[in-house]
Formats: sequence, structure tokens, C-alpha cells
Amino acid sequence: MGKVYLVGAGPGDPELLTLKAARLLEEADVVLHDSLVGLGVGERISASAQVIDVGKRCGRKLLTQDEINALLVTYAASHDVVVRLKGGDPSIFGRAGEELEALRKAKVEFEIVPGVTAALGAAAAAGISLTDRRLASQILFATFSRRPEANAMDWGCLSPATTLVLYMPGPEYAEVARRLAEAGLPGDLPCAIVSSASGLRQQVRWTSVGGLSTEEKLPAPALIIVGRVASQQILEINDEFWRAERSDPPPQRLSVI
Amino acid sequence: MGKVYLVGAGPGDPELLTLKAARLLEEADVVLHDSLVGLGVGERISASAQVIDVGKRCGRKLLTQDEINALLVTYAASHDVVVRLKGGDPSIFGRAGEELEALRKAKVEFEIVPGVTAALGAAAAAGISLTDRRLASQILFATFSRRPEANAMDWGCLSPATTLVLYMPGPEYAEVARRLAEAGLPGDLPCAIVSSASGLRQQVRWTSVGGLSTEEKLPAPALIIVGRVASQQILEINDEFWRAERSDPPPQRLSVI
Repeated sequence: MGKVYLVGAGPGDPELLTLKAARLLEEADVVLHDSLVGLGVGERISASAQVIDVGKRCGRKLLTQDEINALLVTYAASHDVVVRLKGGDPSIFGRAGEELEALRKAKVEFEIVPGVTAALGAAAAAGISLTDRRLASQILFATFSRRPEANAMDWGCLSPATTLVLYMPGPEYAEVARRLAEAGLPGDLPCAIVSSASGLRQQVRWTSVGGLSTEEKLPAPALIIVGRVASQQILEINDEFWRAERSDPPPQRLSVI
Repeated sequence: MGKVYLVGAGPGDPELLTLKAARLLEEADVVLHDSLVGLGVGERISASAQVIDVGKRCGRKLLTQDEINALLVTYAASHDVVVRLKGGDPSIFGRAGEELEALRKAKVEFEIVPGVTAALGAAAAAGISLTDRRLASQILFATFSRRPEANAMDWGCLSPATTLVLYMPGPEYAEVARRLAEAGLPGDLPCAIVSSASGLRQQVRWTSVGGLSTEEKLPAPALIIVGRVASQQILEINDEFWRAERSDPPPQRLSVI
């Protein structure tokens, strides 16, 4: 019996693979990867490895989740090093849960190798801190669904001190904007749309909850950062913060995070 | 004028550095690092580089944030490659905001190099998916403060479908448990305490919101994962989910995330 490694491939730039992920791709006998994984990352896979694309293409699934689970168990029975390569980090919106369950049930040894999740690639691309302590004290990672019955997004909790990172927002920005407004977020709250973070086609658009609905759609993979940190005008906000803090420093504000 | 790279060092294991971080540590003329950065990571720094520990030791700050900001600007004036190395990812609870502001004001070129944040290292250590789609649809990253006036933690929003990752929980688990219960979380909601994720001294403890108060304190760096995904009994929960889904599959539940 071999071992299955659930490996995060990072946000796109092959240099954002971890050293461990790069080593495992060189050692792998079999690599099962999502289509989201960048082409440059694929070049790091050993030439002798069997490579299987299990992802989606143009909305059409190549393999069902059950089929992927079964493949992992089957390959582990006859190969030493099986790498399941996922975009970003395996434990964030990567459906690792079902694969882990299948491996546990089949008593196949496994290990999760964490990676740089898309939100961190996007924050780096935008040059912002998601938890700038003067503006934000917590971060919510969520996805967007257009289905009205979706109770998955519990955005009622969003406070001005929360940075929201919306994975896979889809092309309906107007719908996203409407839902954010319904959740009580002000129209002038900044947003940054980041497409292909860290990749060759990286794009960043600066807008606001109100302006989002008329923004040009950026190609997937994309995500939207919503919150006071998602602004190019952050310098001015910071100046105000520091003036207030320096003129009369309330000790409790110094350690907000 | 040189360039300053704000580089994430990952959760501890030096193999969880990105390829880009490893390259920059080899090329660096100066490295300013936090104490949280693991020793093995330090070994990757070029022997010719000037290395400065700007972190905290035993609660005592070696340098103030203003002094660190000033050092970054000063070194960039006379060195080509200045690396500011931070534990985890720079944009998550790393005070990168203030350093970015100082660099922008001084017109110093900078780049953020994202890393594997501690929550992802902890999820990998515990062998769980933070967003297992059968149990969780969003993740909240927050910190814990014992100050009663702290409005930073807006935990009122926590739903059973939210996974909470609590960075830097401190040693007062009973206080954390009390605040979680006050936020409406049930006593039997699972928790995992992860200490030194991915490092040589990694430890994982499985408990619950109710049980947290009497748990043995684990050494820092530690974090607490709270939510239905943070359980070793996840297999049984999953079985129930699948039975329900397979007997009468409502199409909308298949794409919760």
C-alpha cells in the first residue's frame, strides 16, 4: 500500500509551490490534479509519473467526486507515492473532506500538505494586509451562490471590522453587490476584485460594494476582497488612525489584534 | 534604492517555505525576522546576509513597530534585496499593514510574497478540511483578547456552518470557552487545539467548547479550530450526510460550496 498526499498547489505562480510540494511532485508515481492548477506547476511533475486531470472543463466534469475518491484508493494500492494536487490549499473550498473520508474508510495512509490559499495570493497581488489592525480584526472566507435558498452564506455577521474574502464569486457581480447591500454593508465600502492572482494574467480592480454591480467581469479564477482594507486610499485612513492614536493613545487600542 | 520583500515563512516546517521565499532568502542582503519564524527556516538564509531578529522574546519587544518600519526604509536605501520574514503569511495577523504604509510613504518598492498561514498548517496537522462541504460553508479567522471591551471579536455571527479558527488564543482556555458559550456555541461543538503545527513539537488535542476549559495548556504557537469539522468522529457525521443525500438527493444540496 502506498500513501496519498493531498497537496496544495498554491494560487497559480509555480514559485508559490512549497518546497515540500515540489519534492513530492518530483517523487510522485501518480498525480491526479484539478484543472485550476497552473500549467507552470504541471511542469514540475516527474516525467515518469502518470498524470490524470480530474477537474472540470467549461463546466463539464471530467470525473465525479465518487470516481476521484475511488481512483485515489485504487492507485494507492499499487503505487508508492500518489499526489492529489489541488489549487490553493486542500483544506479551503477544495472538497478534501470527501477524499479524506474515502481514504480513511479504505485505511489508506494519507497526509495533507498545506499550500498558499487564493485569498493570500490575492492580498499579496493587491498589496494589502487582510487584517490591518487599524481597520480589520477578523477575516471571513466564504463562497457565493446565486440560489436564494442558500443559507451557506451567513453574511448577517459582517461588521465594519471584518474583511470578507469571497471565493468563486461567479460572473454576476450585480447579484453579489445586492446580497452584500442586503447584509447591511455600506455602498462605499471598498472592494478589490483579483483575477488570476500571482499568475501571468493577474488583474486587480478597485471598486466598492455600490460600484461592484457595474464593474467589468474579470476571468476566473477570481475572488473579491470586501472591507476597509481593500482600498488604495488606505494611506489616508491610516494617517487618521495614527493621528488619533498619537495625540491621545488609549492603551486598549494598541493591541486590537 | 533596493526592494523590500514581505515574505511569509509558513507555519514552522522549513519545507513549507515557498520556492520563492527560499530563493529570496538565498539572494537577500538583509533579513529582518520575527522570533516566531522556525529555526530550520533560518538555516536557508544566505551566509553573507545580515540577519536581524526584530521579534518579541518572553513578552519583551526587541524593537517597536516604528523602529522596524524605520529599519526597513533605511536598509532599502543601501541594499538591493531586503527580506522582511514573518511567520505564516504576511497579510494575516502579521502587522504587515503598518510596514506597507511606511514603505509606501518612503516610496520604497515592495512586494508581498504569500505563505502558508498557521490555520492551514493546523488543519493539515489535524487531517481535516476547514470547509468540508457537508459541515461548513465558511471560515472565520479571528484572535482572542481577554479585554472585556474588545469588540474586535464579533462572534455573534457564528453559525453551526462556520468554522472558527482562533489565532493566538493565549493560555486562558477557560476564558475562551466562556466567550464561545456566550456567543451561543453549544458545549458539545468540537474543537481541536493545535500547537506548533507542522513543527517538530506538533501536538493536536481533540476536545469541545465545553471541554476546552479543563484542557491542558499547549505551548505557543498554538491555535484553536472550533466547529463541526474539528472532530475525529467526522466519519460518522459524514455517513449520515451521505445516507440522507443518496436516499433523496435534493439537487441544491449537492453544490453547497
